Amino acid sequence: MSFDPASLKYDANGLIPAIAQDHATGEVLMMAWMNAESLARTIATGQVTYWSRSRNAFWAKGETSGHVQRLVELRIDCDRDCLLMQVTQIGAACHTNRRSCFYTLVENGEEKITSDPLPS
Amino acid sequence: MSFDPASLKYDANGLIPAIAQDHATGEVLMMAWMNAESLARTIATGQVTYWSRSRNAFWAKGETSGHVQRLVELRIDCDRDCLLMQVTQIGAACHTNRRSCFYTLVENGEEKITSDPLPS
Repeated sequence: MSFDPASLKYDANGLIPAIAQDHATGEVLMMAWMNAESLARTIATGQVTYWSRSRNAFWAKGETSGHVQRLVELRIDCDRDCLLMQVTQIGAACHTNRRSCFYTLVENGEEKITSDPLPS
Repeated sequence: MSFDPASLKYDANGLIPAIAQDHATGEVLMMAWMNAESLARTIATGQVTYWSRSRNAFWAKGETSGHVQRLVELRIDCDRDCLLMQVTQIGAACHTNRRSCFYTLVENGEEKITSDPLPS
């Protein structure tokens, strides 16, 4: 069956959540949003491009930071309303310069920071 | 810093996306939604409880199917608008009776089903 980005289920803002997972380690790096065109760009270029809800603009990951994500594998879920990408991540996925955005652990009712920013 | 579910950033419907990852294998099993109360229930009981957008009701994962998710670890992302859970998944995470909801691979413009439903 041929894949059509328009066949996915987007929310009221035309967006779909996209999870980026480190292809090498399985670590979940981040979750951000795509619209149909950013997904099409991601597939066409092999460089992950999200849609920035704060800037209301395409967000070619790493365009300014150099921390690009190369798409290794793309999956869609059973409801066609979420994407899972295996990626090769250069440097940090997170804007705090940490490898993953999920560096805050909740344990016994407390928040604990479990990783440091990468050396810059 | 003590953790308060009310401190997270919920969307206009009071929901936050929650990613469930298999604690043992690192496989991403599913993504669904929580509100503050379903997160509080998840933490209190150790059994993952989502909010069903289609039924507009709490969704104690596995309540009818037996395919429960036990919470092993909870993380929040840098923007406090996404959750990542390490879970122990009994049976299938997906309503199609597949282990993961992400069984559809997009490759060279084609969709390919990469896993079968578990034996019932």
